[in-house]
Amino acid sequence: MTDALPPGSTIGILGGGQLGRMLSVAASRLGYKTCIFEPAGDCPASHVANFHLKAGYDDAEALARFAEATDVITYEFENIPTDALDILERHRPIRPGREALRVSQDRLVEKDWLADLGLTPAPYADVPDRAALDDALARIGTPAILKTRRFGYDGKGQARIDSPGDADEALGSMNGAPAVLEGFVAFQREISVIAARGLDGAVACYDPGENLHEGGILRRTTVPAAIPHALATDAVLLAARILGALDYVGVMGIELFVTDSGLVVNEIAPRVHNSGHWTQNGATIDQFEQHIRAVAGLPLGDGSRHGDIEMENLIGDYSDALPGILADPAAALHLYGKAEARPGRKMGHVNRRR
Amino acid sequence: MTDALPPGSTIGILGGGQLGRMLSVAASRLGYKTCIFEPAGDCPASHVANFHLKAGYDDAEALARFAEATDVITYEFENIPTDALDILERHRPIRPGREALRVSQDRLVEKDWLADLGLTPAPYADVPDRAALDDALARIGTPAILKTRRFGYDGKGQARIDSPGDADEALGSMNGAPAVLEGFVAFQREISVIAARGLDGAVACYDPGENLHEGGILRRTTVPAAIPHALATDAVLLAARILGALDYVGVMGIELFVTDSGLVVNEIAPRVHNSGHWTQNGATIDQFEQHIRAVAGLPLGDGSRHGDIEMENLIGDYSDALPGILADPAAALHLYGKAEARPGRKMGHVNRRR
Repeated sequence: MTDALPPGSTIGILGGGQLGRMLSVAASRLGYKTCIFEPAGDCPASHVANFHLKAGYDDAEALARFAEATDVITYEFENIPTDALDILERHRPIRPGREALRVSQDRLVEKDWLADLGLTPAPYADVPDRAALDDALARIGTPAILKTRRFGYDGKGQARIDSPGDADEALGSMNGAPAVLEGFVAFQREISVIAARGLDGAVACYDPGENLHEGGILRRTTVPAAIPHALATDAVLLAARILGALDYVGVMGIELFVTDSGLVVNEIAPRVHNSGHWTQNGATIDQFEQHIRAVAGLPLGDGSRHGDIEMENLIGDYSDALPGILADPAAALHLYGKAEARPGRKMGHVNRRR
Repeated sequence: MTDALPPGSTIGILGGGQLGRMLSVAASRLGYKTCIFEPAGDCPASHVANFHLKAGYDDAEALARFAEATDVITYEFENIPTDALDILERHRPIRPGREALRVSQDRLVEKDWLADLGLTPAPYADVPDRAALDDALARIGTPAILKTRRFGYDGKGQARIDSPGDADEALGSMNGAPAVLEGFVAFQREISVIAARGLDGAVACYDPGENLHEGGILRRTTVPAAIPHALATDAVLLAARILGALDYVGVMGIELFVTDSGLVVNEIAPRVHNSGHWTQNGATIDQFEQHIRAVAGLPLGDGSRHGDIEMENLIGDYSDALPGILADPAAALHLYGKAEARPGRKMGHVNRRR
């Protein structure tokens, strides 16, 4: 507890979306204040945070002011500009640290790094140009997905290639951004592990959840995943290896494919993760508090699960579903305070006890 | 759902303490904004609310502005001045309604009202003057407690009378405030029922908890209370009778004594209640969300309990207890963001799964 932030300290959070919102609530439970750095006004996190510094990531003066007003800095998204991180780090510790951001900000770097660690990413190839795409398609085959190396999320910056004839259009849709080709994995299930590592090096994992994606967006997570115990153990060991190699502090979401030949790492996210939202109603310490505990230097919760939960995202206009959710005694609703329900936008989620 | 507040609406909360804080968090989960009315700056609720209107209850202009900025008004304490309520009610509905406040703001009115309803309050007598106190002591006996009729909480405004010789000092300590004498009840246990009534008249109760008070302050609540099922049913029926008679909307805390001759009503509080804090970690919909659902016109949760919980208040300086709480995997910590840990001050609570 010697490095622990005392109650009343301020945790800075980069990003003001729903993850920042739920991190702020968790921080308040532990007696911490929060300051959100987010260019957009009326953002979800600003509703529940103590302070909202509304400025852009190119505003060096605002970044310095933000850092000075906080005791430690964390984030809800990984695509933070390097220059901004450089400024912030001069003033305050950033947790999770820079190495986790370096690895996860670039799909190619991430896959190389995972392979170097002895883990199995999906088949992939660097696509700096058209010739490389042809080589990659020849090696990986179709169908495959071309993705920008940086700044993709929720299926954005991606183009599916069903046959070599799609290559031109797919590459064109990258708008000249460096890309990586990923092969499809013949998986039985998609699962994810929400893992945490404390400042003291202790690791705690929640039980793996089973994910259902639709159109590149997570639709549903069910815990426990219907996998053998030995495989769940493999997933936890794999997570611990990743966190240890990064000297990681905080919560990480690790998406995995379960295949006939074992676990394939789909991607890692150095932050709380949508597939861990079930912990709010299925664990004593949820992923948001777990992350705050880690970055504040407090001991981690052990992650034990006290119920079987199905988490369902509310995407776009959810108004027709609302009466049924509110009338269901097993359902816990979590809305994000977003004014406009655009198609594909995550508006909230529901955790149902099964 | 026709009278339901849509997400994005603003709930006004009178009072900025820990109950307002946890009500604000619950409102945020349902997509509502909150506006706190509280004279004190840096109050617990202001850390997590959207807006904090810092003004006094005698500021008519501020009260009107507060009401205009909200869609419905609720409160975290019952001692709101009548003049302020009159102003607020001209603009927006106040839930729970005025009758609940009228009854609960005055111990004598409350006891008369409960007796008229056919329920059993503790032995009591009106003490307008010294002669009445002598009569009351002759009838009720000692030990007894003299309490101010209004504005008492957490053991404040109370004086114990162990023998008639204590009468002068006890009456003097009331500082001329109208008082009521209460006899001691020979109880087996203290329990409380956290009950809710929706705008549609539906009633939902949580399982009764067993309370331990020390020095007039709640120290611990354990659920379920170790009482026969029939007695728990009595408590729920009694709660429903109180809520129905008041045409109540919201959560109410009802403190009861279990005696050899049945249940005696100690007091009612027209708000979320300290003895219901266990619901945060033992029920899918906690008392704070239940209250927000009621005042927002949403359907109530059913109140079902999914675990056995012991809630312990953290009173005064809790720093020595903090490492043990954080290291206990069964413990969920809830701090209130208060800067100064004065003796007798509620700083937070812990919910432990048993």
